[in-house]
Amino acid sequence: MTTAVRLSSTGLVVDAENSLHDLPRFFDSMLRGVGQVMLQNNSYAGLLFLIGIFYNSPLFGFAVLLGTIVSTATAMLLGVDRALVRAGLFGFNGALVAIALLYFLQPDALTWGCVIFAAACSTIVMAAMLTLLDVWKVPALTAPFVFTSLCFFLATARFGRLQSTHLLPTAGLPKAVAIEGVVTTSTMIEGLFNGIAQVFFQGSVITGILFAVGLIISSRMACATALAGSLTGLLVAWGMGAAEPAIRSGAFGFNSVLVAIAFGSVFFVRDKVSIVYALLATIATAFVFAAVSAALEPLGIPALTLPFVLVTWLFLFASPVFPRLRLVSAID
Amino acid sequence: MTTAVRLSSTGLVVDAENSLHDLPRFFDSMLRGVGQVMLQNNSYAGLLFLIGIFYNSPLFGFAVLLGTIVSTATAMLLGVDRALVRAGLFGFNGALVAIALLYFLQPDALTWGCVIFAAACSTIVMAAMLTLLDVWKVPALTAPFVFTSLCFFLATARFGRLQSTHLLPTAGLPKAVAIEGVVTTSTMIEGLFNGIAQVFFQGSVITGILFAVGLIISSRMACATALAGSLTGLLVAWGMGAAEPAIRSGAFGFNSVLVAIAFGSVFFVRDKVSIVYALLATIATAFVFAAVSAALEPLGIPALTLPFVLVTWLFLFASPVFPRLRLVSAID
Amino acid sequence: MTTAVRLSSTGLVVDAENSLHDLPRFFDSMLRGVGQVMLQNNSYAGLLFLIGIFYNSPLFGFAVLLGTIVSTATAMLLGVDRALVRAGLFGFNGALVAIALLYFLQPDALTWGCVIFAAACSTIVMAAMLTLLDVWKVPALTAPFVFTSLCFFLATARFGRLQSTHLLPTAGLPKAVAIEGVVTTSTMIEGLFNGIAQVFFQGSVITGILFAVGLIISSRMACATALAGSLTGLLVAWGMGAAEPAIRSGAFGFNSVLVAIAFGSVFFVRDKVSIVYALLATIATAFVFAAVSAALEPLGIPALTLPFVLVTWLFLFASPVFPRLRLVSAID
Repeated sequence: MTTAVRLSSTGLVVDAENSLHDLPRFFDSMLRGVGQVMLQNNSYAGLLFLIGIFYNSPLFGFAVLLGTIVSTATAMLLGVDRALVRAGLFGFNGALVAIALLYFLQPDALTWGCVIFAAACSTIVMAAMLTLLDVWKVPALTAPFVFTSLCFFLATARFGRLQSTHLLPTAGLPKAVAIEGVVTTSTMIEGLFNGIAQVFFQGSVITGILFAVGLIISSRMACATALAGSLTGLLVAWGMGAAEPAIRSGAFGFNSVLVAIAFGSVFFVRDKVSIVYALLATIATAFVFAAVSAALEPLGIPALTLPFVLVTWLFLFASPVFPRLRLVSAID
Repeated sequence: MTTAVRLSSTGLVVDAENSLHDLPRFFDSMLRGVGQVMLQNNSYAGLLFLIGIFYNSPLFGFAVLLGTIVSTATAMLLGVDRALVRAGLFGFNGALVAIALLYFLQPDALTWGCVIFAAACSTIVMAAMLTLLDVWKVPALTAPFVFTSLCFFLATARFGRLQSTHLLPTAGLPKAVAIEGVVTTSTMIEGLFNGIAQVFFQGSVITGILFAVGLIISSRMACATALAGSLTGLLVAWGMGAAEPAIRSGAFGFNSVLVAIAFGSVFFVRDKVSIVYALLATIATAFVFAAVSAALEPLGIPALTLPFVLVTWLFLFASPVFPRLRLVSAID
Repeated sequence: MTTAVRLSSTGLVVDAENSLHDLPRFFDSMLRGVGQVMLQNNSYAGLLFLIGIFYNSPLFGFAVLLGTIVSTATAMLLGVDRALVRAGLFGFNGALVAIALLYFLQPDALTWGCVIFAAACSTIVMAAMLTLLDVWKVPALTAPFVFTSLCFFLATARFGRLQSTHLLPTAGLPKAVAIEGVVTTSTMIEGLFNGIAQVFFQGSVITGILFAVGLIISSRMACATALAGSLTGLLVAWGMGAAEPAIRSGAFGFNSVLVAIAFGSVFFVRDKVSIVYALLATIATAFVFAAVSAALEPLGIPALTLPFVLVTWLFLFASPVFPRLRLVSAID
């Protein structure tokens, strides 16, 4: 994700040899888009993620396809630099927007219309964030997905025809909680794989395993850090006294999974300092998830991957001040 | 609005021939300030907007005059580049702050004192946003007005002498709504012109028509896009099931009016792509209004023109990534 | 605070002559860190602040020491430019995070663990803000402390083992208030010194006086502006009808104290324009405190020094647009 953004911002990408009307290439961009949700610019990883989603729910599978196609096509129609489109950078936010809207809103005709509109908007938000963040050479991550989706969830409080499902949280005031339930071995195992599956809002251990296989194909280290991230999120949540059902569902895992992949296998040259840095970021993510989720409670909206975005930006913005951290070269 | 900012940031504005003690010029700056509320650097437009406001309420008319004078004078006293002041860039936020404070707070002596203080502060906020946004060459729009006003509305929860009117929303938790009321032709007609009038918080069809006349004088296209914007906001709100009284009052219109003027007649060279882009932005504005209005519900404060600001920033930030869009030349 | 940041960003700081294993130097950095809480790069001021805190509460005294040590050590381990560390720039946020966590959370073993983790995180947040704000050459102030602390307070709504004290506000919806209590001479005197003491969350007139003595040692003007700031905050709050207990506790003072020190004795060359500017900023701070405190009410978290951060950023960002204001030279 970073790489492509950096290349583009330095103007090194020359990519004019191919025609637009190249269907396999469009399909490849689309699969990379799905792969980029877990920071993998790899169409095989994207394919396995798709299979994992279809296994759990064909509805969500179609939504991912539709969202990726619409956001990618919007980018093409507006003339976005082909290299960015090909790397899937204008697909992953559309994919996530589509799945999130169908998860939290009733799957009626109006919602499908909103999916198309929202996926197109996610491309505008992505473009805006590229310009905004170019100043610091930091990637947009899944921020466009988060902002676009939350906008539609909030709008349910004004638009009578936009119906939410029971999964959208009810607005309430955050208050201190007591420990709820007992964490067992089954909590741990389910939580571990649900944490990976929840990156795409899937509550399914099998889907989590299929996602892990997709990661192995793209990068063994990505798979290892994803599992380590899910485990870290789960352990921090357990240690701090989070509710057992939330831990089992993977709620404290999916943001940590993404942060662990980002810092453990994508951005930095692996050495002692960067591993400690990645661990610090992954632990912090569990706290930030708790905080963001509580902060959004009065609005009745979910945290989505906002904790991942915030923590990753934080630790990336901080990195130039720490000379012991070495960024992976921009050109690879 | 953009133009002046861009000129200033490139240092092209040379404007030293005129003296400070030039009352007609100050008056001209002031009227341009009122005109800039609808992005018109045109004193005749400003005059007609003023007439429209005085027609509906002399109290608001005086407030607009006071706010514009105070914010413009503050900018002059602090030595702001004369060209920016002349273009009315330090007037429009003061005008809006004054009218908003008198709309949502009791018009007692303390409130009039706050109007003066807030209008002066709006000049500081404007200056801060000019520096902040200069990095991306994006205009501040009405953000200084929004931030300054909301600060005073929030303060009513701590300051016993700062009394709100019944128009300030009561804090509550957002929740799903049912469709309320039936949209008729009269809803449509009133909503269409109220949408334009609400840019200055005026609920009056006649005032809306006077504003439209002011726009025609400055630019026919601005008038056409304003009407189209109001209609679009209204239709989206109706289609999504918003409450009829809100649609009739122009609540879903005024932000769309401003976005439509900005993208349909100010920023881009008019062609097929830019028209589609403007339409997308205008539709998105209705959703963003619903979302922002719901997001601010727990704080008991209104959305004001924050949706216009957010959507316009979003689509402007995004535009450099889309080479098919052509910005109007900075010098015109 | 600014100076060091500016020096660093222009690459002028060369500082390689001293070894890391220099305990007195580490101790000096630590005391400067405590001093920087009130923008004083002065170890004697830091020492007096520490004495003032220990006088009121040894628990908070130890917390400040621990927080400063952890955040400073984290910066050193990650290889931060020695000059920044020596100026105490990586100490003051850790100091405040530690004291805030022990003030609002139960002082059990888990909270002490959180203090260490949070102080380390405050160094990451500080580094991130240095990169972010370097574009505009504006200092991070106490923003890292605010963001880090609020994250832990919010997390109490998800983590059953993270127990708050009764001092953490209960989440509620902001609503209009009536005037409460009568302001007397004792309100004024206690409020004046509590306003200074509250910068470190201390409710003690004696501690406030010890802090004032610390300021005199570092800079007479800093002491004078701190007192003037506390008085201004108090008078604005009184005039606007704030609750007497809040005024007496110094709640409306501590942010104004910091803003007054910053604008009255640190950033600008003292002349008529800069004094008016400082006064405007200090008055605005009382309003922004009221607003921020109300805005955070639905989340059940305190404003901390966020109003100081917001107002100082605002008036610093604005200053380049006002040529009559002259910044103190970066090198002094």
